[in-house]
Amino acid sequence: MMAPIRLGVIGAGSAVWSIRLVGDLCVTKDLWGSTVVLMDIDKRRLGIIYELAKRYAKETGAEFKFVATDNREEALRDADFVINAALAGGHHNYELQREVAEKHGYYRGIDAVDHNMVSDYHVFGGYNQFKLFTDILLDMERLCPDAWLINIANPLLELCTLGTRVSKIKIIGLCHGHLLYRDLASTLGLDYRRVTFEAPGLNHCIWLTDFRYDGENAYPLIDEWVEKYAEEYWKGWEPEFWDTQMSPAAVDMYQRYGLFPIGDTTRSGGWKYHYNLETKKRWYGRLGGFDSEIGWQTYLSYLQKRIERLEEIASDPQKSITEEVPPVLSDESVVPVINSINSDKEAIYQVNVPNNGVIPGIPHNVVVEVPAVVSAKGARPVQVTPLSKRVMEMVIKLRIFRMELGLEAFLTGDKDVLIEELLSDPRTKSPEQAEAVLKAIMSLEFNRGMAEHYGKKGRELAL
Amino acid sequence: MMAPIRLGVIGAGSAVWSIRLVGDLCVTKDLWGSTVVLMDIDKRRLGIIYELAKRYAKETGAEFKFVATDNREEALRDADFVINAALAGGHHNYELQREVAEKHGYYRGIDAVDHNMVSDYHVFGGYNQFKLFTDILLDMERLCPDAWLINIANPLLELCTLGTRVSKIKIIGLCHGHLLYRDLASTLGLDYRRVTFEAPGLNHCIWLTDFRYDGENAYPLIDEWVEKYAEEYWKGWEPEFWDTQMSPAAVDMYQRYGLFPIGDTTRSGGWKYHYNLETKKRWYGRLGGFDSEIGWQTYLSYLQKRIERLEEIASDPQKSITEEVPPVLSDESVVPVINSINSDKEAIYQVNVPNNGVIPGIPHNVVVEVPAVVSAKGARPVQVTPLSKRVMEMVIKLRIFRMELGLEAFLTGDKDVLIEELLSDPRTKSPEQAEAVLKAIMSLEFNRGMAEHYGKKGRELAL
Repeated sequence: MMAPIRLGVIGAGSAVWSIRLVGDLCVTKDLWGSTVVLMDIDKRRLGIIYELAKRYAKETGAEFKFVATDNREEALRDADFVINAALAGGHHNYELQREVAEKHGYYRGIDAVDHNMVSDYHVFGGYNQFKLFTDILLDMERLCPDAWLINIANPLLELCTLGTRVSKIKIIGLCHGHLLYRDLASTLGLDYRRVTFEAPGLNHCIWLTDFRYDGENAYPLIDEWVEKYAEEYWKGWEPEFWDTQMSPAAVDMYQRYGLFPIGDTTRSGGWKYHYNLETKKRWYGRLGGFDSEIGWQTYLSYLQKRIERLEEIASDPQKSITEEVPPVLSDESVVPVINSINSDKEAIYQVNVPNNGVIPGIPHNVVVEVPAVVSAKGARPVQVTPLSKRVMEMVIKLRIFRMELGLEAFLTGDKDVLIEELLSDPRTKSPEQAEAVLKAIMSLEFNRGMAEHYGKKGRELAL
Repeated sequence: MMAPIRLGVIGAGSAVWSIRLVGDLCVTKDLWGSTVVLMDIDKRRLGIIYELAKRYAKETGAEFKFVATDNREEALRDADFVINAALAGGHHNYELQREVAEKHGYYRGIDAVDHNMVSDYHVFGGYNQFKLFTDILLDMERLCPDAWLINIANPLLELCTLGTRVSKIKIIGLCHGHLLYRDLASTLGLDYRRVTFEAPGLNHCIWLTDFRYDGENAYPLIDEWVEKYAEEYWKGWEPEFWDTQMSPAAVDMYQRYGLFPIGDTTRSGGWKYHYNLETKKRWYGRLGGFDSEIGWQTYLSYLQKRIERLEEIASDPQKSITEEVPPVLSDESVVPVINSINSDKEAIYQVNVPNNGVIPGIPHNVVVEVPAVVSAKGARPVQVTPLSKRVMEMVIKLRIFRMELGLEAFLTGDKDVLIEELLSDPRTKSPEQAEAVLKAIMSLEFNRGMAEHYGKKGRELAL
């Protein structure tokens, strides 16, 4: 193996993420000689990352051929690997959508529901995101049927489950959220490099089933911290927006469900933590967590500033990109996973693939997040310790229930399914409210396709 | 076999139901010679049924020894079969509880939730009912460990699932709701005796997976009726409280979920049909169905009148009970099932027993309602046609989710679980409302044990 690859990157204009991808590629010599087709419909953003990618290779002496295109077919044709990093419509439109939903009484949007509060995880209102994903699959079946699709786009659980059910394309979902076990370790005063852990579940809903320090069970250290040090820790706490791993919400989830939540999992939970900003602040500190109106705006501003900085560098040939983003392998597993598959180098990664019995109690055809041995054979999940009863019955099953509703709505174009979901939402106070919010969302310019998709059917049964 | 049995009846004061039981016993000669211990803590009601039972046997020449007692141990000791027909606390107290909940914004009570709108199916507020059931099991393990428990008490799904998980007592749940397939048949103009059907699922959540007339698939006849005759049928419709099998709600569920709902299933569904009385009337006709404030009161009044009538007969030795309740085998399967087990006479009944793989996609340890061959070996479920995807994903899984919450709350005494359930209830508008309604319910005199059970724990985590 070790042959150069052709890699298509859909949504390469996600510049903050893409520049890390470029950095990781450039420090991975096994992949030198490869062609990387950067694709985005946002030409400005695409221009930035294209310029920076070429400069990154030059500065590091890495040998890559970068191509920039706004044509998806060009990015997919004959690809060996495809990365989907796109947010169809972009943050701006989803913020508009959230605003409309809030006017109809849906705080943080219709997709912020119990056990799924992450603000860019659009299960019901994410038609564009689903449509783009299935379009990519259809294109791949035609243009590169043997390629691997590495999906990092959200809603990752829904997209990967949908994709593995409807297409033969080989799909691996990757998310870096599990790495937050390091925050847990360091808060306990542990060197994370001496920690091993296991946190299986569903994407953004993973739970620490095994936690060791120098090979010894380290869960008692968590209990000790919760009992003796947590209150003290939270007294002087001034968390950043991403800083939810050791929040009171995370500890409460641990006490409620019996396993410590890891990474993005801590951002969700039941309504208990999310009713309003005041509640969110109580459970996540001063910003109300990643997904409050404050936390999320902080995140979007951060992204904006980073893009502006990257644009500044791109537009000034005198500036160095490797000074800004040093040529060291990042924590993202996308490039290492591609390299493991391409070079048949067995290594263990946290991946999202169909369950097929790895986690007892989850249907075979639901994509789970589990450790897996990745090589040219693909991703072979490693047997994990089963989740606690409460995690399974009170969280996972509800999360899967909503995922299935989301997929069923998209697959059938039956608006009734969306209505059914909204009628079981504690924020819905009347069927009229549910109808109205969907109508308002589908009236948004960028949801024209959604309106058409769900406008096909309509049934009224009156007495 | 064919030996006389000792039968204990817990909650025998449910006189309207018990007199049918007595009638069925008296016409089942295989069981003559048996002893029937009628037990209830309501001595007035017990007196009525005891008097009528003796008179029924006398009028029919049936040979039974009837015993009346308010002592549960006496009813269970050395029993071969036990029937649980009790509603711990009685309708009166549950109506008080519902009233309190409505004051806090929970229309029809906290237990009226999507896909479980049946008014005496108390999953979260039914502490007394759960406690009585587990007490019966504990007593049985001591006093009659080999006896069969026939449970007809609600919430049947929860009680039977709980019982089969925590006890070795042999439990069969029976419910007559599936017989409403006859209403379906007769509305279509079919002679129900030429119909065969299969309606598996969970108790009160069963779906027509097979429907034949003279052996031919008769589902097309349903479609024809829906298309051509339903609107006409509903125009002149003046349904009785129990008359929901052919309601617009039932047809809408069929169109939404892909299988026709049978019996009590038609009384539930999502919030769509149940928001308020007006909505209920739209979907269930003039009374708003069995479970509206009008329908349920009609039912309770009917029960009240029947009891008064039975009391009238009991207190007048000149009156005949067999004139009131003719000595013909009723539609209830309780006595035939007992007889099949006791006499090892194989016959097929609709029963509620642990799934163990009969319905794909439902966990093994969840009690399902399925046809089964009953004999001395017990109830052996018959393989059924799998449920439709929508029934599974949109109804069954949500119903199981709530069942598990109900069991977890009861088993742990953790009020947080009840709070978690309430926070996902669309009627809950704040965490304070959820706390308040539970406090109010637990302040009711008859819920003293519930307050104690859930008062043990309490955790506050403030920032």
